[in-house]
Amino acid sequence: MKQPIRVAVTGAAGNIGYALLFRIASGDCFGKDQPVILQLLEIPPGMKALEGVVMELFDAAFSLVHGIEITDDANVAFKDADAVFLVGSRPRGPGMLRSDLIAANGPIFVAQGQALDAVASRSVKVLVVGNPCNTNCLIALKNAPGLDPTCFHAMTRLDENRAKAQLANKIGGLPGDVRRMSIWGNHSPTMVPDYRQATIGGKAVTDLADAAWLDGDFRKVVSTRGKAIVDARGASSAASAASAAVDHMRSWFQGTDAGDYNSAGIYSDGSHYDVPAGIIFSMPVEIADGSVSVVTGLEIDAARREGIDASAAELLGERETVAALL
Amino acid sequence: MKQPIRVAVTGAAGNIGYALLFRIASGDCFGKDQPVILQLLEIPPGMKALEGVVMELFDAAFSLVHGIEITDDANVAFKDADAVFLVGSRPRGPGMLRSDLIAANGPIFVAQGQALDAVASRSVKVLVVGNPCNTNCLIALKNAPGLDPTCFHAMTRLDENRAKAQLANKIGGLPGDVRRMSIWGNHSPTMVPDYRQATIGGKAVTDLADAAWLDGDFRKVVSTRGKAIVDARGASSAASAASAAVDHMRSWFQGTDAGDYNSAGIYSDGSHYDVPAGIIFSMPVEIADGSVSVVTGLEIDAARREGIDASAAELLGERETVAALL
Repeated sequence: MKQPIRVAVTGAAGNIGYALLFRIASGDCFGKDQPVILQLLEIPPGMKALEGVVMELFDAAFSLVHGIEITDDANVAFKDADAVFLVGSRPRGPGMLRSDLIAANGPIFVAQGQALDAVASRSVKVLVVGNPCNTNCLIALKNAPGLDPTCFHAMTRLDENRAKAQLANKIGGLPGDVRRMSIWGNHSPTMVPDYRQATIGGKAVTDLADAAWLDGDFRKVVSTRGKAIVDARGASSAASAASAAVDHMRSWFQGTDAGDYNSAGIYSDGSHYDVPAGIIFSMPVEIADGSVSVVTGLEIDAARREGIDASAAELLGERETVAALL
Repeated sequence: MKQPIRVAVTGAAGNIGYALLFRIASGDCFGKDQPVILQLLEIPPGMKALEGVVMELFDAAFSLVHGIEITDDANVAFKDADAVFLVGSRPRGPGMLRSDLIAANGPIFVAQGQALDAVASRSVKVLVVGNPCNTNCLIALKNAPGLDPTCFHAMTRLDENRAKAQLANKIGGLPGDVRRMSIWGNHSPTMVPDYRQATIGGKAVTDLADAAWLDGDFRKVVSTRGKAIVDARGASSAASAASAAVDHMRSWFQGTDAGDYNSAGIYSDGSHYDVPAGIIFSMPVEIADGSVSVVTGLEIDAARREGIDASAAELLGERETVAALL
């Protein structure tokens, strides 16, 4: 049996956290032979509910769960952590603009970045799920100067998975059979779902679906899917977001599949696809032995170029909004 | 790749269903190489929420999910089903007695038993999770005369898992390291958690924990755990119940672990441990190649005997309450 790894989750008593913890505990994320010690963070008003979640986790008698700790102190939750899911964030309230949301979340990610810097493993893998995840990720990264910027990712895997589901629904076939579907940019309506290299069952998506749909409704449906879920279910996406977080972290720890790649919001150094340096930007990545490489050599046509530039401009604007926190 | 199996889930948009579906879809239940077609049942007022759940299931892009169908007709949901989770049931309302709950649920399980009889695979494995699960299971079984009674189980695996968690908490060690912990009887406060053959880390529980605790608070905490979860979390056990259902069905399809056994509510034929015939009674079982055998030769001491008889008497009383439906 391997030595346990330490896995921290923030917002652990929330709906995404609740779905995520049982998936991690069952071995879906880090492997069926990898024990975990769960280090769970909540804000003080959430601690009682978190105690109930932990009761249920114990009651599931998972053989891979070698310990569970709960705390409202990030310096405790992140101590020696190998993997961190930053799920907790302030939700958007009535009448809040995106800029209000960004400002409200900033201080949370300043404090969490500082705590990661102080106590986490030096090779920690931090996945930011809480929105606005790209800019929250940038804030955490900038407040953790002792950690390499490659320790920080923002999650666009849910957008990638949603795109796969839409392609399968339109073309026929299964979402799980779509390969090389990537998301560029911000986890916001400016994201660019790039289907141009995508295949389903080995066949090029561009040969199977109508070009007007791919550049029209497809993009629109993917980027507004969250609202459609709320309308149908009466609650935000939770289990699918948790599932994407499991997928992202599994790829990060165990590698991307041969011949495939996935999307991750990573810290741009300006060297890929003319994306400006110093923002967290989603790109297609290959991962092997924990090392993340941007997929190079992809052709960017005029429509993708325009979309990528617009999403980058949005992220530069968000960075400006939080400049005092970086 | 194996041929897909058909997996039906009732109450699919409820909290247990929501947790259960993603665990099934990820392969935790039927294996990482076993595709599934999900056939989901809800009552008409739940169909819109179920559509939202299915959107999220598609959005998770699980490679093992080869189809998802939704319906409010049990004859559609159970068509050719290989595995069925009967999760949906009427919850207990304010002021309802257990007998009221039993009467309210009876007609649901009459109809579902008839539908299973009409359309399910002849080797279907039906796990009743919705409470009162033993008697609901009996009703379904009796309304499916074309299916073997061994096709029907009621779930006491959650009680078994809760017992493991309490033993680990008291003794030290991990819930997942407890073996040979069984539950006798009804999934109700009369259940008998039998620790007498249980081990943790290979050592006898009876050598490690105080006898007065084992026969006192241990039993009480296990049998009233559901209420303690509600008090802490502000909501009923959902993910831990789903996890136990996954565990039960995995054991049923893939077998119990060598040297271990698990608890299942099975149809008593009167041949084991002086349990009356014709009720669904939880006993320790071993499973190999889908065949379920009661563990024989266990010593039943006076305290266990008294508890088993009391739980059997309760189940005979419940059977009397629903006699017109059998």
